[in-house]
Amino acid sequence: MQELSLAFVGFGTVGRGCAHHLVRHREFLAQKHGLRTRVVAIADLTAGSIENEAGIDLAQALDRVASGRSLNELHPGRTPSSTDEILRSVRAHILVESTWTNLKDAEPGLSHIRLALQNGMDVVTSNKGPLALAFRELQTLAESNGRRLRFESTVMSGTPVFSLFDTALSGAPVLGLRGILNGTTNYILTEMAAGRSYDEALRRAQECGYAEADPSGDVEARDPAAKAVILANALMGADLRYTDVDRTGITALTPEDLSAAAGKSRRMKLVVSVLRQPDGSVRAAVKPTLVETGDPLAHVDGVTNALQISIEAQPEVTILGPGAGGDSAGYGLLSDIIAIHRQRSSAPVFESAGSAR
Amino acid sequence: MQELSLAFVGFGTVGRGCAHHLVRHREFLAQKHGLRTRVVAIADLTAGSIENEAGIDLAQALDRVASGRSLNELHPGRTPSSTDEILRSVRAHILVESTWTNLKDAEPGLSHIRLALQNGMDVVTSNKGPLALAFRELQTLAESNGRRLRFESTVMSGTPVFSLFDTALSGAPVLGLRGILNGTTNYILTEMAAGRSYDEALRRAQECGYAEADPSGDVEARDPAAKAVILANALMGADLRYTDVDRTGITALTPEDLSAAAGKSRRMKLVVSVLRQPDGSVRAAVKPTLVETGDPLAHVDGVTNALQISIEAQPEVTILGPGAGGDSAGYGLLSDIIAIHRQRSSAPVFESAGSAR
Repeated sequence: MQELSLAFVGFGTVGRGCAHHLVRHREFLAQKHGLRTRVVAIADLTAGSIENEAGIDLAQALDRVASGRSLNELHPGRTPSSTDEILRSVRAHILVESTWTNLKDAEPGLSHIRLALQNGMDVVTSNKGPLALAFRELQTLAESNGRRLRFESTVMSGTPVFSLFDTALSGAPVLGLRGILNGTTNYILTEMAAGRSYDEALRRAQECGYAEADPSGDVEARDPAAKAVILANALMGADLRYTDVDRTGITALTPEDLSAAAGKSRRMKLVVSVLRQPDGSVRAAVKPTLVETGDPLAHVDGVTNALQISIEAQPEVTILGPGAGGDSAGYGLLSDIIAIHRQRSSAPVFESAGSAR
Repeated sequence: MQELSLAFVGFGTVGRGCAHHLVRHREFLAQKHGLRTRVVAIADLTAGSIENEAGIDLAQALDRVASGRSLNELHPGRTPSSTDEILRSVRAHILVESTWTNLKDAEPGLSHIRLALQNGMDVVTSNKGPLALAFRELQTLAESNGRRLRFESTVMSGTPVFSLFDTALSGAPVLGLRGILNGTTNYILTEMAAGRSYDEALRRAQECGYAEADPSGDVEARDPAAKAVILANALMGADLRYTDVDRTGITALTPEDLSAAAGKSRRMKLVVSVLRQPDGSVRAAVKPTLVETGDPLAHVDGVTNALQISIEAQPEVTILGPGAGGDSAGYGLLSDIIAIHRQRSSAPVFESAGSAR
């Protein structure tokens, strides 16, 4: 059985979410996919770093971090001096990158991904920054190095989006995508539709942990705009930059705007749209939009995300699911690891037979 | 570029839907997937039969059938004497099977699929009968012959269901599935919720072409029960028979049942459920069920289908989309062909890069 070696860079909630799934579903993954993994490095600014070609005990590493102890002293592995040093020296099949999203210059994630691809590693990442700011560069770099780059978690977390286009929805050109791709703002709009003020709704979102102390990345729609760019470039062959997105946040909305909408049996939602134009170009926008109640997006409430996909062959398909959380984003990383494993292993696998419990 | 040869058995709306996509998206499929197809046989009780190893002109075949002429005299191919003869003699990579669903003995589809697998062909099918009645036999037959059997269209037509489990949702055990998997009954329930009687709603469904003259397969829930069996066996490792499904149709419902539900902000839906039990077994049921308005299934109206999937790793994911129609079911067949092609071709493909328009 092939053993895939993994290097984790970033070991916060998302990286640990993925590690947790790898530990919990170890036997399931072996039985169902013939997938065995060995983690050979972990690097995190807060949790510490460890490198061990023989394999790090992931359950121990998770325990250690959960109890606030550094990874540096975990069993006889080497403590590397820097993340870049790890990425230059480590012999791993896949980099599991989950450092924080930075929409200014995409660092440090962008450098991590570049280094890994140059050094012969496939990459799975949950980091929106590098994909939103440097998609074509990274795609070209991966292709020229014969490597794979997957990023399921960057849009709708572990809910399948990009993997739908591996086979399922890849038989005809994509006409357009529409979605609710930011749980924080959708939660706030859901609360406002129930009569709360923007400030009150935002405070509740912060209390629930859905909004950050500085909520501007969400409420000014920078987060869904980054996702729009990734969707356009990855699924519709566009070459959009982040600044190309027509972007309006929700800060100017009042409860009256929302109740007026509801009175007309419509709902106000922050809708991302990525549409093929008649001239063949692709246009992306994020803005508050009145949605008819017959529209699947109208009933997506709270922190749930949704994406409606239109291809040239059949009526629209809509997928709803979690858009955030360590479990879900970590699961998205795992699904990317499985996809790469499936491509690497040449043995034919019988499809859809859930023989393993 | 690898050329996949296809044999169509069944060339009604579903088979022709698939053929139509193959013609229309020929260049797209070549560019995006490196997929070229050659149809070497078509057999249909009504449309006629033709066999030609050099390749049948699919656009011509579609035109011919559309204008009511038989395929038998289409260009210099051989007219085979029977479908079984084709399946014994034809040299094709994939059987594209789309004959009618028969839930009594699954014939003739079951024999077609058996013959093809025995003769070294992979199989894609939209036919629920063989999968609902003989899943384990066919799975074993495919495995022992080293062949692939895919059946995306059997549940929710071309909306991705089984392909979600190739990689995306295959990283943890499935806990359960809940869905609205029959468009005819969902259309009738939607009409009844608007105040119409069962008879009136059924008549409208028949006028729209959503219900057959004999609607019993839908309204007595045999169709969604068959789908429940396929889901349980294919995705949850069960070995259920069609008769194991706890099945109740919608014929006994009154508009009062539905309006009483709505008065309590609930909706009456014909819900399929396939759930892992505490003892590890899998139980499947189809029955009219009151669904809370916060449930994604509550707002699935008309002929749309939906499936909510629960796995051990993250919150539920729900997919909505078409559940019938030649375009959609034909598209499901195409997505299965693409999946098989992707598995057969060993060349690495860069994921998610929509370079081809």
